[in-house]
Order: sequence, then C-alpha cells, then structure tokens
Amino acid sequence: MSHLRDLPTPALLLNRERFEHNLARMREHLAGLGVPLRPHLKTAKSIEVAHRVMAPGEQRAMVSTVREAEFYASRGVRDLIYGVGITASKLQRIGALRHGTGADVAVILDSLEQAQAVASWSRANNDPLPALIEIDVDGHRSGVVLTDAAELIAIGRALVDGGATLRGVLTHAGTSYALNDPEELATAARSERDMALEGAALLRAAGLPCTVVSMGSTPTVTFATDLSGITEVRAGVYMFGDLVQAGIGTCCVDDIALSVLASVIGTRPDKGWIIVDAGWMALSRDRGTHSQRLDYGYGLVCNEHCLPYPDLIVLEVNQEHGIIGLRPGSRAEIPMLPIGSLVRILPNHACATGGQHDRYQVVSGDIVVAEWWRANGW
Amino acid sequence: MSHLRDLPTPALLLNRERFEHNLARMREHLAGLGVPLRPHLKTAKSIEVAHRVMAPGEQRAMVSTVREAEFYASRGVRDLIYGVGITASKLQRIGALRHGTGADVAVILDSLEQAQAVASWSRANNDPLPALIEIDVDGHRSGVVLTDAAELIAIGRALVDGGATLRGVLTHAGTSYALNDPEELATAARSERDMALEGAALLRAAGLPCTVVSMGSTPTVTFATDLSGITEVRAGVYMFGDLVQAGIGTCCVDDIALSVLASVIGTRPDKGWIIVDAGWMALSRDRGTHSQRLDYGYGLVCNEHCLPYPDLIVLEVNQEHGIIGLRPGSRAEIPMLPIGSLVRILPNHACATGGQHDRYQVVSGDIVVAEWWRANGW
Repeated sequence: MSHLRDLPTPALLLNRERFEHNLARMREHLAGLGVPLRPHLKTAKSIEVAHRVMAPGEQRAMVSTVREAEFYASRGVRDLIYGVGITASKLQRIGALRHGTGADVAVILDSLEQAQAVASWSRANNDPLPALIEIDVDGHRSGVVLTDAAELIAIGRALVDGGATLRGVLTHAGTSYALNDPEELATAARSERDMALEGAALLRAAGLPCTVVSMGSTPTVTFATDLSGITEVRAGVYMFGDLVQAGIGTCCVDDIALSVLASVIGTRPDKGWIIVDAGWMALSRDRGTHSQRLDYGYGLVCNEHCLPYPDLIVLEVNQEHGIIGLRPGSRAEIPMLPIGSLVRILPNHACATGGQHDRYQVVSGDIVVAEWWRANGW
Repeated sequence: MSHLRDLPTPALLLNRERFEHNLARMREHLAGLGVPLRPHLKTAKSIEVAHRVMAPGEQRAMVSTVREAEFYASRGVRDLIYGVGITASKLQRIGALRHGTGADVAVILDSLEQAQAVASWSRANNDPLPALIEIDVDGHRSGVVLTDAAELIAIGRALVDGGATLRGVLTHAGTSYALNDPEELATAARSERDMALEGAALLRAAGLPCTVVSMGSTPTVTFATDLSGITEVRAGVYMFGDLVQAGIGTCCVDDIALSVLASVIGTRPDKGWIIVDAGWMALSRDRGTHSQRLDYGYGLVCNEHCLPYPDLIVLEVNQEHGIIGLRPGSRAEIPMLPIGSLVRILPNHACATGGQHDRYQVVSGDIVVAEWWRANGW
C-alpha cells in the first residue's frame, strides 16, 4: 500500500470503487432481464478483474486473443469463447489448450471454409471442437447475413456432419457505438436480439442444434429491455467505462474507473498549454469522441483526486508528451499547474488506453491498494 | 530459424535487409556532413537494434523513458540523454542509474523551476547532473523561445551556479513532419540549425558552457545540407521508415522495414472487404497519413513477400480486426485472398505500431532469422 504520489508516471490507475459500482450495476440490470453474462475480458486482460466480474461458480468468458484464452484457462476459467474468426493456423494452439487444461474453448466463424477446417481438425484430433456461427446484424464487420439462410445452414451442416460441435449463434452490434439516443439504442438491442433468434431458428428448423444464442456489446446490453430467447449476453468495456461510453450514454463521466496518472513537465503560458509526460504511448491514439457531440481530444484532464477540470482536455499527443489545453471555444480558465503536479486523464476508449500498459495500479481514493498485471500480446 | 508462415499472427516483422540499408544510408549522409549521430532509440526499444545503429566505439543515444535509459545503460550504452522534460520525481531513478552503471545519463529541461530542481538534487547527492536546455525552434511543443534570452541565460546560470552541469542546448523541429517539399525541408533544417546555434551563442556570450549543440528529427537531419556548428544530430524513425516518412520524402515505400504479419480470417465480397486478425492492437490507431497527400488508412497491404497490392489499405480497425479494402476512388481490383492467406501491413507510423508489440521477428526474405525483444513501458 502506497500513495499514488509515489508511483512513477505515466501509470494506469483503476479506481476500485467505480469499477465495483460498474460491475454491480450491470449485474443488477441483467438479473432483471434474467440473462447470464459472458464478460468480454479483452478490455481488462486481467485475472483479478475476471475473478471480480464472474460471480463464484460462473465460468463463462469471452476473449479476443489465443494468448488471453491460454492465460485465463490456465488460471481456472473453464468456459471460453475465442471471439475472433478462427483460421486453421490457430487450431493447434486451441486444441493444445483444451487438452492441457480441460477447459471448454469454443471458436467462432462465418464461412464454409472455416467450418470445413474446424471439422477437419476435429476429426483428425478426435476432439469435436465447439463452434458458434457469427450472424451479421448491422453490416458492421463480420458474420453471415440472414438473407443467405442457405449459407448459414450449409455452415452448420459442415460442422455437424464433419465432426465438430455446432454450439449456436453469436452476434455483435458494432454500429451501436455510433448511437446516443436511448430509444435508438433500445431499438438496436431489439434488432440484434431478433436477428440472433432468427439465426437460431433457421438452424433449428434445418434440424441442427443451437443451444447458445449469444448477443452483445456494452451499448445494446445496457439498453436492452427484453432478452427473451437469448441464452447469454456479452459485454466488456462497461467494467471500466470511458468517454466514448459516456457519450453513448451507457455510463456517466463520474463512472469512469480508468485513468492515466501523469506529471506536468512544462507549461507554455504563451500558447495556453500544459505539457505532461503522457503521450500516445500512455493514452493511445484513439480519438473515439471525435465523432461524438462532445470531443475530448485524447482525454479529459482531472486533478489527482479525479475531479475533472472544466473543458481541460489533451489537445495533442506525441510519443511521450501530451499537450493539455482548453477545448476550443471554451470560456473556462486554464488552471495554473506547476511543474511536477499530478493529473489524471480519463480515456476516450478504455480498451485502447489499457492496451498501452502492462499493469493496473488499483487505487482506493489516493491509496494504491493492489497491482494487477495484464495479459497483452498474442 | 523458421519460415514466417510458422509465426502466430499478428506478428511484428522487421526486414533485416531494408533495416540495414536504412542505417547505411543515414551513416553515409552524416559522414558527408561530418556530424556524429545520437540515434533516438525510442522507436526501436531494442538492444539488438542499438548495437547495429551505433558503430563500434560509439556510445551516445537518446531515449524517451527512464525505463529505456535503465535498459540500455545496464546493457553497456555509456552516454544517454533522457529526452522528455525532467521532473523532480524522476531524479532519484536517474541518479541511481548513473551511480549503479557509471553511465553518463543527462536530462533536458526548459524552465527555471526544473533547473533549480536539478541543481538542488545535484548538490544534495554530490552528483553534478548534466542537463541540456531545450530551445523551441518552431512552436511545436516545448522549449525556451529565443526571444526570451534572459530566461535562457537564467536557466543556464541556475544550473551552473546551483551545482549541476550545463552541457548545452537541444532542439527538435517537430513541425517538419508536416512538410513534403525538399526545399522546405532543407529550409527547416537550416532554421533548426541556426536557432540551435543562436541558443548556444547566447549561453556562451553570457559566460556559460555549451559543449553540446544537438538538433534533430528524421526529416530535418535527412534534408540538412550544412550542419556547421552542430555537435550531434538525433534521429530515430529513419531506421525502420514508415508511410508517414515516405509521404514526407525521407524514404520510399520500398524502404519500410517494419510490417505487421496478419492472417485473412474472413471475406465480405458484398462489401469489398477482406477481414484480417490485425486491428488497432497490432497496428495502432495512428492515422498519420490522413493529413498527407496519399492516405493509407491504417496501413498499406502487401503480400507475404512484402510486395504492395495496388491501393489496398486497411480501411477500419477494431481491437483485433482489420477491415481491408481499396482506397476510395481506386480502380484497382481487390485481390481474392482466401481465408488463411498471409498479408503484411506497412505502418503509418513505425514508433506507434512498434509500441503495440513486445518483440520483433527479424526476417530475411521469408525466413525468421532472429527474435529481438522490446523494452516497453516506463
């Protein structure tokens, strides 16, 4: 236990109370909807976070890299989905992980070629690999389009007939991140649910199994009001919150649990600038709020107690320098921060800012109560 | 030694021949100008790179984090400058490093407060810490403006009278990254040189020492034609090159030594998309070519032998997904890449893309000849 003033800067801080509040709020919301959560652990990449997100006895989680799957499975998480379209070259590691830990590691796919590769691997290794078929619900990225029911069924049949396990369908409403109206978000959630259910119905009508109907994104899960038929939801960034999520409306700025601690290393009164030792290496280059109603540059600047300064944002970043100033047009006054002052910068995008660091300094008030390491890389 | 097809994707590749060519070209250029190089090792963060960039007997280097200083000094580099404005809170680590390794580690500053803190630390620890005063040459970020000669001299005097070592002046022409005309770049180099020399002259005229006159940025060093009076130049990204540097004109696209190896994980012929397993986590969110004449999105896509596909770029990125397609307006044809195909993506900004990885896979042709680790973090 030390004071945050004793930390070298820049450092990634995780506010324990806000984090726990975010977890409790989602848990309560989903209890009301009667749907279990499969937390997406790609934001956190931390076993300590995983243990707090999953209630005792809960085992399901989603990951974004094979390395994360290995990290969590070797630490006791039993039911994992690797949530990036599978390729044959990754099957050996997935198989070794299943064999080595006994964990249930499933894969996702959206093409006949992938289904054939998974089936072929399953037969060759006498391990009927569980797979979920991704359904495209909004043209965002990947997935089978529902208008091509024949393709969906062909993929399912290739898995089942080929010796793999067809576990179900999965959706991700990526375009919901562009919304900020509660009504539109609720509509997006309904639409995602309906399309996930339609995919499941198509498979079942063809005599194929579909036990899992998984949907998710923090925005659609947060604004969902009826998830009948959905067997699990996925969300990740809600744990920490960020300025983009605040812009969407899934959290408030005061809920954001992640911040970057930085030191003032210079001032340029002639330009209205404060220079800190946190650049894009510590904050990331994410400009997610650029397309939102309120643009926070590369982050919102707070004092060391995490109280925001009005309109004070990170205007520009270089590798290890951040240039802080007032949002253009602001009438606020720039605080006179002497060299050596500490600031905390709330991130645009928690996944991206977290990705720049190897550990969290967990703080309660100004006290560092723990250090949690991240499983970065692939 | 393995084939790059055996690497898990995404992976950071370093083309050995291009890297060595880039080093040789800069070395030859500087030999012609008669000025020694202090390589900036923040791009590479690798001792193997350092050993190749510095000729035998050369010891000087620049770093961007205290962690890098510790990393290189403990591996034998003897003359380092920590190139981010110093604060009192970092002096203990710098001092311990100097004491522990015997390396000459200098700091930079641009204010009286910093000079007083450095002087105070020097007296308290009986270690006259060497410091360079940063001169602002283009309003880019930090530095003392030359019109405030009194401030510059006061800083120098505070160091000398207070018990620290005033080593000299240092400039960084950050705005040169926005140029692309050889004439303008040569002018920027002359201007940076002249302002560095003017800063040195002001100190010397006040009876203060100034043995080092250090200038640098890859663009100004590359286009400099006369560096009389300059005692060393600093450059870093030239080692690898990137699309931004190609846009500026310091290298060609074919010189870019860094690429991200990725696997095709899906195709969307309906949208003209190829999906790969390299998103912003592997490529970074850097959009440096956005403001240049030729915008490469999040990177230029090449085949596995590093031959670019015409107009094929990374249009959009999510955490672990890249969406590849043709540059808007292109008449090229999108290549039919089956799932599992390997591509190599040339980065906008080598420093940023490198920063997303913990190691380099050094390749010669298609063969992985070495694995070099990076010293990330702070």
